[in-house]
Amino acid sequence: MRPSGRAPDQMRTISIEPNFTRHAEGSVLIGFGDTRVLVTASIEERVPPFLRGKGEGWVTAEYGMLPRATHTRGSREAAKGKQSGRTQEIQRLIGRSLRSVTDLKALGERQITLDCDVIQADGGTRTAAISGAWVALRLAVNKLIAGGQLTRDPIRQQVAAVSCGIYQGTPVLDLDYDEDSAADADGNFVLLSDGKMAEVQATAEGACYDEEALLRLLRLARIGAKDIFAAQLKAVG
Amino acid sequence: MRPSGRAPDQMRTISIEPNFTRHAEGSVLIGFGDTRVLVTASIEERVPPFLRGKGEGWVTAEYGMLPRATHTRGSREAAKGKQSGRTQEIQRLIGRSLRSVTDLKALGERQITLDCDVIQADGGTRTAAISGAWVALRLAVNKLIAGGQLTRDPIRQQVAAVSCGIYQGTPVLDLDYDEDSAADADGNFVLLSDGKMAEVQATAEGACYDEEALLRLLRLARIGAKDIFAAQLKAVG
Amino acid sequence: MRPSGRAPDQMRTISIEPNFTRHAEGSVLIGFGDTRVLVTASIEERVPPFLRGKGEGWVTAEYGMLPRATHTRGSREAAKGKQSGRTQEIQRLIGRSLRSVTDLKALGERQITLDCDVIQADGGTRTAAISGAWVALRLAVNKLIAGGQLTRDPIRQQVAAVSCGIYQGTPVLDLDYDEDSAADADGNFVLLSDGKMAEVQATAEGACYDEEALLRLLRLARIGAKDIFAAQLKAVG
Amino acid sequence: MRPSGRAPDQMRTISIEPNFTRHAEGSVLIGFGDTRVLVTASIEERVPPFLRGKGEGWVTAEYGMLPRATHTRGSREAAKGKQSGRTQEIQRLIGRSLRSVTDLKALGERQITLDCDVIQADGGTRTAAISGAWVALRLAVNKLIAGGQLTRDPIRQQVAAVSCGIYQGTPVLDLDYDEDSAADADGNFVLLSDGKMAEVQATAEGACYDEEALLRLLRLARIGAKDIFAAQLKAVG
Amino acid sequence: MRPSGRAPDQMRTISIEPNFTRHAEGSVLIGFGDTRVLVTASIEERVPPFLRGKGEGWVTAEYGMLPRATHTRGSREAAKGKQSGRTQEIQRLIGRSLRSVTDLKALGERQITLDCDVIQADGGTRTAAISGAWVALRLAVNKLIAGGQLTRDPIRQQVAAVSCGIYQGTPVLDLDYDEDSAADADGNFVLLSDGKMAEVQATAEGACYDEEALLRLLRLARIGAKDIFAAQLKAVG
Amino acid sequence: MRPSGRAPDQMRTISIEPNFTRHAEGSVLIGFGDTRVLVTASIEERVPPFLRGKGEGWVTAEYGMLPRATHTRGSREAAKGKQSGRTQEIQRLIGRSLRSVTDLKALGERQITLDCDVIQADGGTRTAAISGAWVALRLAVNKLIAGGQLTRDPIRQQVAAVSCGIYQGTPVLDLDYDEDSAADADGNFVLLSDGKMAEVQATAEGACYDEEALLRLLRLARIGAKDIFAAQLKAVG
Repeated sequence: MRPSGRAPDQMRTISIEPNFTRHAEGSVLIGFGDTRVLVTASIEERVPPFLRGKGEGWVTAEYGMLPRATHTRGSREAAKGKQSGRTQEIQRLIGRSLRSVTDLKALGERQITLDCDVIQADGGTRTAAISGAWVALRLAVNKLIAGGQLTRDPIRQQVAAVSCGIYQGTPVLDLDYDEDSAADADGNFVLLSDGKMAEVQATAEGACYDEEALLRLLRLARIGAKDIFAAQLKAVG
Repeated sequence: MRPSGRAPDQMRTISIEPNFTRHAEGSVLIGFGDTRVLVTASIEERVPPFLRGKGEGWVTAEYGMLPRATHTRGSREAAKGKQSGRTQEIQRLIGRSLRSVTDLKALGERQITLDCDVIQADGGTRTAAISGAWVALRLAVNKLIAGGQLTRDPIRQQVAAVSCGIYQGTPVLDLDYDEDSAADADGNFVLLSDGKMAEVQATAEGACYDEEALLRLLRLARIGAKDIFAAQLKAVG
Repeated sequence: MRPSGRAPDQMRTISIEPNFTRHAEGSVLIGFGDTRVLVTASIEERVPPFLRGKGEGWVTAEYGMLPRATHTRGSREAAKGKQSGRTQEIQRLIGRSLRSVTDLKALGERQITLDCDVIQADGGTRTAAISGAWVALRLAVNKLIAGGQLTRDPIRQQVAAVSCGIYQGTPVLDLDYDEDSAADADGNFVLLSDGKMAEVQATAEGACYDEEALLRLLRLARIGAKDIFAAQLKAVG
Repeated sequence: MRPSGRAPDQMRTISIEPNFTRHAEGSVLIGFGDTRVLVTASIEERVPPFLRGKGEGWVTAEYGMLPRATHTRGSREAAKGKQSGRTQEIQRLIGRSLRSVTDLKALGERQITLDCDVIQADGGTRTAAISGAWVALRLAVNKLIAGGQLTRDPIRQQVAAVSCGIYQGTPVLDLDYDEDSAADADGNFVLLSDGKMAEVQATAEGACYDEEALLRLLRLARIGAKDIFAAQLKAVG
Repeated sequence: MRPSGRAPDQMRTISIEPNFTRHAEGSVLIGFGDTRVLVTASIEERVPPFLRGKGEGWVTAEYGMLPRATHTRGSREAAKGKQSGRTQEIQRLIGRSLRSVTDLKALGERQITLDCDVIQADGGTRTAAISGAWVALRLAVNKLIAGGQLTRDPIRQQVAAVSCGIYQGTPVLDLDYDEDSAADADGNFVLLSDGKMAEVQATAEGACYDEEALLRLLRLARIGAKDIFAAQLKAVG
Repeated sequence: MRPSGRAPDQMRTISIEPNFTRHAEGSVLIGFGDTRVLVTASIEERVPPFLRGKGEGWVTAEYGMLPRATHTRGSREAAKGKQSGRTQEIQRLIGRSLRSVTDLKALGERQITLDCDVIQADGGTRTAAISGAWVALRLAVNKLIAGGQLTRDPIRQQVAAVSCGIYQGTPVLDLDYDEDSAADADGNFVLLSDGKMAEVQATAEGACYDEEALLRLLRLARIGAKDIFAAQLKAVG
């Protein structure tokens, strides 16, 4: 039995509130149950040094967690003077995931930064962040198209992410905090709307897992991704 | 004429949504017009080194601005590896303001940290933060009282803050971004519900100001503070 | 009774030794009683990035305290790897104060940096720094005028600063360390020779203060500023 | 055709030189072809704060790359003042991988740190590091057993890692630098000697991959792991 | 001919003003010509971790240069967030030099920190700092003896430092800035009043030097040290 | 008697393995007994800002110690976020030493960086680093000459370094760790193949030393340097 009473293949409620803030070209407050992440997409007409003059754009991400997003207060990374390894790992993952569905040549020499800030954490912050970042990116690119700055859509398809894990011997979808902290193994799956995968990260915490378990987690992830893809489309109208 | 069409002594709409997040002992989303700040109050049963064993508590604050809270994206302080002078100045002001209404001995050997994170900025983020922090502090202290951890209320009165400035020759209340960036002088007033002042910071930007102008700004601030005090009380029930 | 035996409206001895060091375009050792601050003004023929090509100059300040300027040794900020919030707050205040009397267009595309280093601290280091910085700035600008690099004087008037506070119920002028650490409220007043104000920062430490008290502190500040203005003029000949 | 002329399921030459340095409790120079990583295991009779007094040990890892391990010189992380996100991601992976085969209770309240320093890089530095770290850990634990400090062996089985990827449409084992920089997708597989998995990280670089491809990469990884397990056993005698 | 007109074996004027500041247990403003260094000695009743409980004391030094001590303004190390290699090299040298004449056991479990801050630089700042630090240390230790905290004098003898170099082919004593920046080789000599050496650091800048040259520099250093020893004794009465 | 049984004027075995790694333009693993340092020389076609456009090159060095090169594990400088004072002092010494034999004009506008990483430490790491750096530099410059990028050899002669010290009253050559940690005085001598000196750094640890002792240490250093010069020549063929 899951602590939340959910079925093993049941996602938490997905909530997506587009245009949550005013200034960003794209913004969204996404919720996977009690996990809530604010994602903004900012367009800048410049690219990082390694891309200058190549006629290509860039999509990147930054991730942060408000100090009291969690059960007990964590210290503020800006005050400590550095981002943790976990933060850097997550923001690199978000950036790669969004680039996997973006035609950077079609984007032109501009950069879109996806800022993912966790307002409230209950497991799955990185997967909610990726899923919300696609919406923010979509909204920002829509503005570029509407404004005539882009004639060809650089977004090739949708990308969504969800975590799955083995909780008390059973593979379950979309771990919340209680499950996550007790899971034997868990994985983050970044999936595309055409059925392919952009990234799989499966980690044993207690017992290691076999190929069969990996495939069962992947199948659960596909179920969750379907719900997320639908919620994304609804949010961007 | 003010860009927003407000009268010189008119506050923007004050919105206070208590219990905006789940984990913090106190939390609030406060809005002064389009400026929106999330404040959480976190109770920890420990005090900073300089207070250990003295039977007194501490109230402190941290302040941050999400990178795209502003019109153009600012860099993330956690990524740059340090907090700006402006950030430190503001969080010191918030902490002093809240301590000015708290009986630290009555609080006992515990610390309450007020995290003020700007979700959206349109002028007056520090004054909204102080005004919201009082609500978050009040909610957190209520929990301590309800839980029997405190028998005497350490909060002596309300504290609120508002900015006033001289815009195109006229003293006006509660500057928004358009006014703030063009004001000749502006001040932040931290006022108490008994009519006293905790802090006055008045700065000339263009022309310097005289005593008469300072007093007119202070009078406007009192008008705004009255509205904020009422909104605070309504929010905490 | 004040610990120093001074009357409530009595400044400490103001000493100003111009040209204290050789290399700087302007330099001064200023003393308010036992508080001694070395201020140098350095002219550089470049401006910060946000001003490039705008035909305007910039005046900025940095502040430091030698580790054993104080009663007990403080740690060296260069060794700790960062400037404290207090240091940044003070250097921002010094910079704003000096810019309030400078016509930046008349200065031309150059920057003057005022380095204020506290040799010995006994209360009022930031107000002594501002008052001394005006002298250093004046001396440096005089060199630019004498050298023909400036034809119009960019310094519009004098600026001076002094602290006042409520010590044992009585408003007093120019707090020394003993008074400062026991004051109920204190304020830093940055005043101009035309009678206007550049900055007022009044903070309650113990009890909060009312409008009447603020005005009494301001009146004391005007008395002190008169003495400082006279000493500045004498120093620059 | 692979640039090296290897068959798709062919590992590079695995070389393992145990006891490469004198001071560490365990040390090894491991080579996967031209990739060479020096791994040392250091035993300390203390544990991190979160484990104190719990009767459990800890295994952790740090990773570094000598500035000229690579084709062009990279900057030294110690000189830049921080470790890159990539470095932190890798050292977290190495630590988790080794903990997945260690019974931390059986290890007792001590910490073993695995320092993995890349002397020469030609692709697969993190997988060589994990594979070598097991040997260094094994050697260090053998000393604890030989010295009577441990009576029960805390190492449950072997762990090895290898990268696989899709290079010009073909799944290949153990990517070298030329392949790695051109691969469409690649994965790092951390496998145990009982056939289970500790970690799978598969990332699309160009085209995304499907389930079939993931399974083919995993099968290749098992082939490579077999060779590594044999080389590890031979090295530790 | 030396730019200053001095004879090759002539020191600049040595000026030592003891008790330059009030709070430090020992303080001195030392001048070697236009080079002026403020040195304070601070006594703390604690030792660094590696000495705790060993019944021994510690003498250490920190060094800084005010931003405009030099001909052109240098950046402030506290603002840059780190001390340069040069700064660290110098403060290590000062600490070693003073420890070479101190009986750390006789000092007892306390630390004396020598803060050497360069007010004005004209070559030889590190040698002036060492020579002044001995005076500040002597004054501080005198207070400990006068206060009955020490019964045995831990200072075994005097230490002084001076630079010598080969300027336009001629060995000269006590290089000023003009000579220092053009010297072929220069050395810093830390000498004791019994004639022994605590430290010799001789460096070729342009041409390398031979043994004969080294000995001639050393002989000049002895001449300078004699003057410094006399000035030190006069300063401490 | 020396712990190693060596005669007072006996070097440890010098081993030099050129071309130890593949990517660097020059690389060498040098050993002085159990001390082993990997040195790579990297050529970059750019110079530091202060040399741009002057038609001169630059030779610089960086130094690091692997965490477990030593008897007990030291913390990793990249993880701590800064290089120690000792590290910076050493890398500055290495850079100066190599520049003392290089004609920077003949090198042209390019920079050669010598990375010296200590694999295993047993005393004398900085002297082994300097001695090995000459070989790496020689190999890199040979490539420039062979490739026609240089027509005139910028290396004027050989440079080698060795430490000497007074151990139990006897001057000895090439201190190992056991001797180094117990020596009364020790010196690092950087010598040129023409008999001149580039740098002498002699430091008293316990007792101070006199001129006679300094000269005896220097004579021992010459004996050691002869061996090192021969080994260098043999290594570069």
